[in-house]
Amino acid sequence: MFRLQSYLNDAWHPGDGPTRPLVDPATEEVIAETSTGGLDHAAALAHARTVGGPALRALSFAERGGLLKAMSRALHGHREELLELAQRNNGATRGDAKFDVDGATGTLSYYAWIGKNLGDARFLVDGEADKLGQGARFVGQHVRLPRPGVAVHINAFNFPAWGTFEKVACSFLAGMPVVTKPATATALLTWRMIQILVDECELPAGSLSFVAGPPGDMLDHLGPQDVLAFTGSADTGAALRGGKAVLHDSVRVNVEADSLNAAVLAADVGVGDDVWNTFVRNVVKDMTQKTGQKCTAVRRILVPAERVDDVTEALVAELAAIRVGNPLTDGVDMGPVTSASQLRDVRAGIRRLADQARIATGGADPIQGKGAPDGKGFYVAPTLLVAGDARAATQVHSHEVFGPSATVLPYDGSAAEAAAIVALGKGSLVSTVYTDDRDWLADAILEMGPWNGRLQAVTGKVADQSTPPGMVLPNCTHGGPGRAGGGEELGGARGLEFYTNRVAVQGDRGLLKKILGEA
Amino acid sequence: MFRLQSYLNDAWHPGDGPTRPLVDPATEEVIAETSTGGLDHAAALAHARTVGGPALRALSFAERGGLLKAMSRALHGHREELLELAQRNNGATRGDAKFDVDGATGTLSYYAWIGKNLGDARFLVDGEADKLGQGARFVGQHVRLPRPGVAVHINAFNFPAWGTFEKVACSFLAGMPVVTKPATATALLTWRMIQILVDECELPAGSLSFVAGPPGDMLDHLGPQDVLAFTGSADTGAALRGGKAVLHDSVRVNVEADSLNAAVLAADVGVGDDVWNTFVRNVVKDMTQKTGQKCTAVRRILVPAERVDDVTEALVAELAAIRVGNPLTDGVDMGPVTSASQLRDVRAGIRRLADQARIATGGADPIQGKGAPDGKGFYVAPTLLVAGDARAATQVHSHEVFGPSATVLPYDGSAAEAAAIVALGKGSLVSTVYTDDRDWLADAILEMGPWNGRLQAVTGKVADQSTPPGMVLPNCTHGGPGRAGGGEELGGARGLEFYTNRVAVQGDRGLLKKILGEA
Repeated sequence: MFRLQSYLNDAWHPGDGPTRPLVDPATEEVIAETSTGGLDHAAALAHARTVGGPALRALSFAERGGLLKAMSRALHGHREELLELAQRNNGATRGDAKFDVDGATGTLSYYAWIGKNLGDARFLVDGEADKLGQGARFVGQHVRLPRPGVAVHINAFNFPAWGTFEKVACSFLAGMPVVTKPATATALLTWRMIQILVDECELPAGSLSFVAGPPGDMLDHLGPQDVLAFTGSADTGAALRGGKAVLHDSVRVNVEADSLNAAVLAADVGVGDDVWNTFVRNVVKDMTQKTGQKCTAVRRILVPAERVDDVTEALVAELAAIRVGNPLTDGVDMGPVTSASQLRDVRAGIRRLADQARIATGGADPIQGKGAPDGKGFYVAPTLLVAGDARAATQVHSHEVFGPSATVLPYDGSAAEAAAIVALGKGSLVSTVYTDDRDWLADAILEMGPWNGRLQAVTGKVADQSTPPGMVLPNCTHGGPGRAGGGEELGGARGLEFYTNRVAVQGDRGLLKKILGEA
Repeated sequence: MFRLQSYLNDAWHPGDGPTRPLVDPATEEVIAETSTGGLDHAAALAHARTVGGPALRALSFAERGGLLKAMSRALHGHREELLELAQRNNGATRGDAKFDVDGATGTLSYYAWIGKNLGDARFLVDGEADKLGQGARFVGQHVRLPRPGVAVHINAFNFPAWGTFEKVACSFLAGMPVVTKPATATALLTWRMIQILVDECELPAGSLSFVAGPPGDMLDHLGPQDVLAFTGSADTGAALRGGKAVLHDSVRVNVEADSLNAAVLAADVGVGDDVWNTFVRNVVKDMTQKTGQKCTAVRRILVPAERVDDVTEALVAELAAIRVGNPLTDGVDMGPVTSASQLRDVRAGIRRLADQARIATGGADPIQGKGAPDGKGFYVAPTLLVAGDARAATQVHSHEVFGPSATVLPYDGSAAEAAAIVALGKGSLVSTVYTDDRDWLADAILEMGPWNGRLQAVTGKVADQSTPPGMVLPNCTHGGPGRAGGGEELGGARGLEFYTNRVAVQGDRGLLKKILGEA
């Protein structure tokens, strides 16, 4: 059996003790195994801090950007192989695989460009110098210095490529070494990408480490300058945030968790309008891309009561035509969910929602995947539910079904009520509003905005050029309040904030200008 | 007995159940009592969220600034009365009382000015619009919207005025209502200030609430848009951060905690130089102002080994001349610590440090306060210790004595070694370096910087005009990594970040510009 290895202390380690299988979710075939038993995490973190950190901090932003560019190129050079691994281990269609792999190389490349623009500096200057005393000479100048610790990244199973490297890009550019841990079930792709980088890029010693499975006691060894960035379930996020070392040493934590994202159709949008068509296209894409396993996928579809039938009809027509099966089979539009436990959770979740909403298409029953062995693979149908009362459908606002499922919720058409319903989700990553009513839009942005990390407004003039709402762009922040974890990633240079300490330096204006480059 | 009351739901509540005494630490006389039994915290938080939040958010920054200005003026109008309360309940000298009370009104006034400059807007625009798609029209614009929750502030006993209102200023200006809770032992001053504001300012309904003692179950009722700002001990900070509601709902938490701040003398500074004189003056002020009960007070004094005797001699001469006693007595330079438990902790802490360092002046023994009844009051002498080996004196880097005590630590004179010793404290609020050696200073800023929230550089040209390092200015951030809590307050408009959600709004450039004022 093929064994994934971990990369710690600049060396590969097979691990010992019990192994875990990695499975092709389209066929249930075991394709690899991994073990992280016996790894010395304390030593690995110390190596990253004492060797990797100083090496990265010694580089300028432009040099760190050059490293990211080289990483992006090296990975892109293996694109076909990586897409195939994603299809085999993640149940991804070729389109899904591109979304993940090209998202990784694209984000690395974007931050390479940010680094180039930041130039020869090694840290960020924050604002202008401010006069502090009576004289003009004594000033305060804020800077952001890289944290002299290690960044531990714990990623979710759904984006083994993008999830890993959007975090690595920001860490490296800020000047922090990384220990990254993908979800075990889909670690194959991440492992191969790390292997390519180790083999082909001149990674600074100690800058990048990789744990090919369960993290053991790693988090017990975090210290006051370390950071922990997590993407995954809210429960795990809360557990990580409540860890003893984290609480005791003020380890900085970023959580990106569950989210009941919303698509909100305003009352002014007519059936067949450009905005309407984009709405239908976006919802279907969000529900089915990566088999609905995106943290940004739409789960709640708010529709003026009088439009519910039209919307349901339009969505059912599209969803019913989706061909579900083995992504390596011709003519398949949507693959399986990623694991047996995900399938179990998704089916249970659909049943839970169906207590308060009717199923318009799909459902919790098992289906046979096209091109899959009989009864094998983790397949579920695209499932649209329709609730009679948005507020009474409490499960829709509290339980995320992490699969190809969403629920239509009627509302009265007002921006205030839409915002109030969105807020029932207690914090989301992204909501999208579809309208050409400017006053409605203004109210929606201000009322709904604080309940989302990102808010997309699709109006007539941008209906054709707007990016899909489920797509996370590196120049916009990604994260959300409350249930969504309260975190923030990306957003251009904003993504470096998490990995740096803001320091107010007080002193002589001329001297600080010479030392810090500003003031 | 005079009873403090809490102010919740826009009404005063005496509380029922057991009371707690408030004591004059100079005489141990009981001067008031308080009870927070029977308060309905869930209702109070809901009132703040649903009444106070919308009222504040409806105001422009300029209007919120006008409110802060009115609050500053109202409090300043009662300055003499407030100074006397501080002297009676806090053991503060008149100078200490001014530091606290004028710090409060000054910070309110500073944020009034920030609000005026921010003008008619009601939220902050963050950066410029960024083109997202192929066309020029579809852009992303980041904004910071006020969180639609309540800000709960839990403050420390040492700054009942400034600690309360530096937080209120930022919350109010950002647009968040406040429930503030001072430490019970010194709540008298805060209570009176809240009473003045309720009586004399037209506070928006629900905007300001006050809990005159233990918070009961208040924190169990926090929700996803609430924030919790805490100043106090690291242990309490960790407990608050690990609270169930906080973890589960991603309540945003800011902690400002223990800190082993450092003053670092470089080898180039000669005895009697301007920089030397400022160094001695600053250390003595930090050790004795507010009887050393400042989170920013110096605890570790790093001195080149060959200067230890000179520094010790200079500091002992100044410290031994400090007259300790009842602040209401003429000729007293330093008052008591604030409570019996603080006195116990300070004495135990000095004994702990004395296991690894010799006492050069002062000590853990009880002293009679000038003008205090015999054997009464919580007095301790200014205490300087000198360690023979900076790294071996582990207690000095791990245990904060929150009183008039600091320890001289010899080092080899290099910036790298100074930074390494400062880092043994695992994160501080502020360190100060004294030098005219530019290369040394550059190394010190970059190496020591990330271990501090603020770094002050005292050089010859600013030796006379630099603010005392223990003074927190509203235009510089206040907080620090690791042991210091990992938080951040103030820093001009930066202080509003904690109370706002950054949202990436995506849409039509022209429309967003009209709605958001930029793009």
